[in-house]
Amino acid sequence: MALMRSWLESANAPGCAFPLNNLPCGVFGRDGEAPRCGVAIGDQIVDMAAAESAGLVQLADAPLFGAPSWNAVMEAGPATWRAMRARLAELLGEGTAERAAVADYLVPQDGAQMYMPFRVAGFTDFYASRQHAFNVGTMFRGPENALPPNWLHIPIGYNGRSSSVMVSGGEVRRPWGQVKGPDDEAPRFAPSARFDIELELGAVVGQASSGPVTVAEADAMIFGYVLLNDWSARDIQAWEYQPLGPFQGKATATTIGSWIVMKDALEPFRVATPEREKPLLSYLAEPGPMLYDIALDVALTPKDGAETVISRTNYRTMYYSAAQQLAHHTTAGCRMDVGDLLGTGTISGAEAGSFGSLLEMSWGGKQPVSLSDGGVRSFVEDGDTLDLRGRCIGDGYEIGFGECRARVLPALTDPYAR
Amino acid sequence: MALMRSWLESANAPGCAFPLNNLPCGVFGRDGEAPRCGVAIGDQIVDMAAAESAGLVQLADAPLFGAPSWNAVMEAGPATWRAMRARLAELLGEGTAERAAVADYLVPQDGAQMYMPFRVAGFTDFYASRQHAFNVGTMFRGPENALPPNWLHIPIGYNGRSSSVMVSGGEVRRPWGQVKGPDDEAPRFAPSARFDIELELGAVVGQASSGPVTVAEADAMIFGYVLLNDWSARDIQAWEYQPLGPFQGKATATTIGSWIVMKDALEPFRVATPEREKPLLSYLAEPGPMLYDIALDVALTPKDGAETVISRTNYRTMYYSAAQQLAHHTTAGCRMDVGDLLGTGTISGAEAGSFGSLLEMSWGGKQPVSLSDGGVRSFVEDGDTLDLRGRCIGDGYEIGFGECRARVLPALTDPYAR
Repeated sequence: MALMRSWLESANAPGCAFPLNNLPCGVFGRDGEAPRCGVAIGDQIVDMAAAESAGLVQLADAPLFGAPSWNAVMEAGPATWRAMRARLAELLGEGTAERAAVADYLVPQDGAQMYMPFRVAGFTDFYASRQHAFNVGTMFRGPENALPPNWLHIPIGYNGRSSSVMVSGGEVRRPWGQVKGPDDEAPRFAPSARFDIELELGAVVGQASSGPVTVAEADAMIFGYVLLNDWSARDIQAWEYQPLGPFQGKATATTIGSWIVMKDALEPFRVATPEREKPLLSYLAEPGPMLYDIALDVALTPKDGAETVISRTNYRTMYYSAAQQLAHHTTAGCRMDVGDLLGTGTISGAEAGSFGSLLEMSWGGKQPVSLSDGGVRSFVEDGDTLDLRGRCIGDGYEIGFGECRARVLPALTDPYAR
Repeated sequence: MALMRSWLESANAPGCAFPLNNLPCGVFGRDGEAPRCGVAIGDQIVDMAAAESAGLVQLADAPLFGAPSWNAVMEAGPATWRAMRARLAELLGEGTAERAAVADYLVPQDGAQMYMPFRVAGFTDFYASRQHAFNVGTMFRGPENALPPNWLHIPIGYNGRSSSVMVSGGEVRRPWGQVKGPDDEAPRFAPSARFDIELELGAVVGQASSGPVTVAEADAMIFGYVLLNDWSARDIQAWEYQPLGPFQGKATATTIGSWIVMKDALEPFRVATPEREKPLLSYLAEPGPMLYDIALDVALTPKDGAETVISRTNYRTMYYSAAQQLAHHTTAGCRMDVGDLLGTGTISGAEAGSFGSLLEMSWGGKQPVSLSDGGVRSFVEDGDTLDLRGRCIGDGYEIGFGECRARVLPALTDPYAR
């Protein structure tokens, strides 16, 4: 597929994250305006609520775009998702007769405030990178027990906390929690000293289900993908996670990108999961390529410092796809809802420099990461800004994922002071 | 405290679950009527929506009781909760001048359909019975590793799946899932052969918070308690739960009681947690008694068979209180929402006959439980109806928790047939 040219020149510029091929979905507002649905194009946002009110985009009997979330659009289903993309391609494509009409509903991205793009129904986080599972397993349990016996059979996941999900641009407060060093007699209550990030994508479930679904059905239920940073307090996690899994170590915040990249925009970039090391049960069989070739970066910028890209990896390295994860999620009859968010799990490649967490990059703090301004990091420090970036590189165009950024605030001196 | 007498005679009858002291909160409707808020009294329900519309109960500027959930009432806060109880005590108390007025808004419980009493924001399940943790730990990891090292320091919990929570009276379909016996080479996909119950209470969070809260603040946030049966597929759970905790083994269903017993009704029954085996960190210190003396039963009724009470225990045996669990839940800055549901964890006493799951009662299937009709159970069988029951025994009155019942349906022959 080649660049779909728009009359909006900024959408055709080389390296533009939001060409007409992309059309990602966000929720925006300016200067106290009510948040509403918008679609990014070039350096602009199509005000979908206003375009709908004006009759320029009409996909359903009731309004879909005026709410501060994409949930109603998702609920409307895949035919509506496709109809929306087709209509926007008409309105924004080179040579449209409706250029003047749609120009009235373009808002500059610069200066727009972005909000949570959807209401999160449930948040589930998975563990699907072979390298990440091996790395973390080695550090938590030793190399001989690194990969749990179920890992090559089950897309392992756990329920996260949906109230902790926040949109790009916010601040994340270093948490307090119970920690205990291996040689300590008893635990202490203290600010986390090993606060970390996890580079992930999030699959946004756009259709509900009430019983087990196949991988093909699961894929059809997915509306799109967001960048996702699952903040993790490693010291809290290490002490609490046996036997029932991570809890407060993962409860502080999960930052997602401002823009949902629709699955349709990613179609040209589908790639297959790697060869199975052990045969999978048939309910996990994939009818076609279910991963995507998405280049991913993590950048760290210290307070008053310069940015360093601390990791470069790719979503295509994952062992399980989001469609397999969603299919597995439904096996026991678990109802899935519009707005469920499925974290892929930390995305770590096999090469040096391709790990998705500082825990892995610094190997538990033993090999601190060097920054371009001379500093080093074992874990994140107060004042650091973390940016995740993602892009698919097409034939003369890119599909960008937009901003997924948050800054770390110091822990409260006394979390119970009122 | 003694029985508060009502002019409604059924509320004063010995053994009545719903005297004027109780006033539990449910959502009801008859014959296709819109579900709305009601309060149980004797064998009747006060139609709170109708009473509010008529001006008989007026607690806020906007209507609180017309919605099919108690979330708006919870959101209104503890002063409103107390004002509601005070107003109902006036209307329903012996010697009221308003008897005729309120009588118009009483609906018989018999024939009313009960709905989910609140919208579940998040569902968290804990693990707070010393005996249960020891029993299950022994079966899953051996007696020497039964109690994890963190258990006496942390009210261990994990995030559950809020979409799986359903109200009493429903049916629960035996799930399929990945299972693997200890001697099997590879896992199979099969219906669960070890489908089980867990006797719990659920604490209903009625106030939101955005940062760490103390145990006293946590207690004040709790609106009330429901019976809670956390259905568990033990074979799925055993194979999947390492390292990130239970997932599909707990995703089929969690049945809650139809009635939320408000915390105020439980005040006379407060008891302290047992003596600490190890000192707790100060953020978990309790300012007063935080458990309740609630007698609990589990009854199993086979299809076309007679009921057997298979367990009798008490909530007072727990090691951690719901207030401690909620305080711990907030340590890392996790936002809590109105409608969050916190399962106490399986409630198992120390004596024979007081365990809260069939896994423990039958000791992993090795000592099947005898039923009154001659049958035996290692786990639940298709067609079984499970009833949880709870009551506080006061001075001449009881506080009952109402019905928490579900029937087990056989697994689908092919879960992917369409």
